[in-house]
Amino acid sequence: MPDQTKSPESGLQYLRQLIAEWKQSPMAEALNMRLIAADQGTATFEAFPSAQFYNPQRRMHGGYVATLLDSALGCAVQTVLPADEGYGTVELKVNFVRKLTAETGRILCKATVLHAGSRMQTAEGKVMDEAGKLYAHGSGTFLVYRP
Amino acid sequence: MPDQTKSPESGLQYLRQLIAEWKQSPMAEALNMRLIAADQGTATFEAFPSAQFYNPQRRMHGGYVATLLDSALGCAVQTVLPADEGYGTVELKVNFVRKLTAETGRILCKATVLHAGSRMQTAEGKVMDEAGKLYAHGSGTFLVYRP
Amino acid sequence: MPDQTKSPESGLQYLRQLIAEWKQSPMAEALNMRLIAADQGTATFEAFPSAQFYNPQRRMHGGYVATLLDSALGCAVQTVLPADEGYGTVELKVNFVRKLTAETGRILCKATVLHAGSRMQTAEGKVMDEAGKLYAHGSGTFLVYRP
Amino acid sequence: MPDQTKSPESGLQYLRQLIAEWKQSPMAEALNMRLIAADQGTATFEAFPSAQFYNPQRRMHGGYVATLLDSALGCAVQTVLPADEGYGTVELKVNFVRKLTAETGRILCKATVLHAGSRMQTAEGKVMDEAGKLYAHGSGTFLVYRP
Repeated sequence: MPDQTKSPESGLQYLRQLIAEWKQSPMAEALNMRLIAADQGTATFEAFPSAQFYNPQRRMHGGYVATLLDSALGCAVQTVLPADEGYGTVELKVNFVRKLTAETGRILCKATVLHAGSRMQTAEGKVMDEAGKLYAHGSGTFLVYRP
Repeated sequence: MPDQTKSPESGLQYLRQLIAEWKQSPMAEALNMRLIAADQGTATFEAFPSAQFYNPQRRMHGGYVATLLDSALGCAVQTVLPADEGYGTVELKVNFVRKLTAETGRILCKATVLHAGSRMQTAEGKVMDEAGKLYAHGSGTFLVYRP
Repeated sequence: MPDQTKSPESGLQYLRQLIAEWKQSPMAEALNMRLIAADQGTATFEAFPSAQFYNPQRRMHGGYVATLLDSALGCAVQTVLPADEGYGTVELKVNFVRKLTAETGRILCKATVLHAGSRMQTAEGKVMDEAGKLYAHGSGTFLVYRP
Repeated sequence: MPDQTKSPESGLQYLRQLIAEWKQSPMAEALNMRLIAADQGTATFEAFPSAQFYNPQRRMHGGYVATLLDSALGCAVQTVLPADEGYGTVELKVNFVRKLTAETGRILCKATVLHAGSRMQTAEGKVMDEAGKLYAHGSGTFLVYRP
């Protein structure tokens, strides 16, 4: 992947500015999630599970975890795009492997780009607690939109 | 699938009671979604997309759509379980096929059970607007927990 | 979807010619599968499970079922493309819901296009025996290549 | 994960014996694939793409790649099971990121267990050529069957 960190027009620079300014998307704000780190091909979100986002079984809703993964995967993809190229999630798959509740505490989702093509990108991510225990993992496909 | 509609102990009866009482899970409440219909092997949610749940690209966050699908798939699965059996999403896959914004208006997600095994269930669902236009579709795998 | 059945240049016409001439792809030939029907937005394959394609657990390999689904999904997509447009599978997901062996006999896989966009298509399919019992289901995403 | 390498009854020992004896499943044999390495939580297959397994677009069929991934994921899961516990693929998802042909030469698929639960396991895998170039990646869910 080309080094885009020096270009003032890179997606990575844009994301780092968001982090510096504590700006989030409306959905991340609504679900108490935040992009905390971005590098070439990777992005990390933190989230604070709470009963406010429980499913009927009194644990974190699968959609909460899916939101966290989609957010991290999308930002990872953005780090390797020029700032003027858009992208959209085409497909997202999540595996839920452990019960997640408010008691879990702060969780992290780190996503990594696996394929950075000119038309399509793929990325994968893992949701872990602070001790490194895995709660969910997933992957997604993204289409790139040229200006 | 057995007719569980007459048993006072069925998951279907439980869901219909929730509908009658306008009760939702915390997550559905938070994202403005609601179970509106349940039958043997199917469940339907409605949702009202709004800018409050936008992603950084100013359209509905993929996680919003994933939440809607996971909710509908899970309730579809519950309609064919006895009331005392639990279930959990093991895996969810979503395809996003059309841009969804606040202008789309009310959307519906109807889910259908495809396989109702004793250990595992699968279901699929579609997200459409009121004109029947498709915005997303997906499928999921669920594990059944015996008491 | 536009009616392409009358154009001599349609993917559907091309597939129907293959059916008439009993021509298959090398992989379909190798695994004893065959396209048997194609219509606007749908395609059906038949397959004849045999011990030759067993996995170490002495049932049909998941890859056999995945091949059947990918074949049917791809042909369904092709039915709605002009003959000069290519396509490729970007992503495939399969749910295996029932044990499949040589004793199952002839199986059918019918696939249906769910979204026919200019850049991307999605399709879903089901694998059933002759009695209509479900063995697997899946969905896929396809990119369209213009000449 | 417990160290099962010393037990004569472990899935890992069983797989290593297969490797030593050059034994493969019928499907692996049919598609010219072979398990070449197994360790705690990982398994590696090699495969030799050839025109015999092409799709109608004259490249390796998606089902070929799916077979390779399902094989490697399944063996990775088996390495962390006692020899008397069975398993089955519940769900498999594959991303195809690069065109694969007979010219690609020998490819490798390394799979890694991500979650080893008592009822369910998940694993991920990558398909690369000898230079480490990525052609596909995927993940799967497996149910564990106690004797």
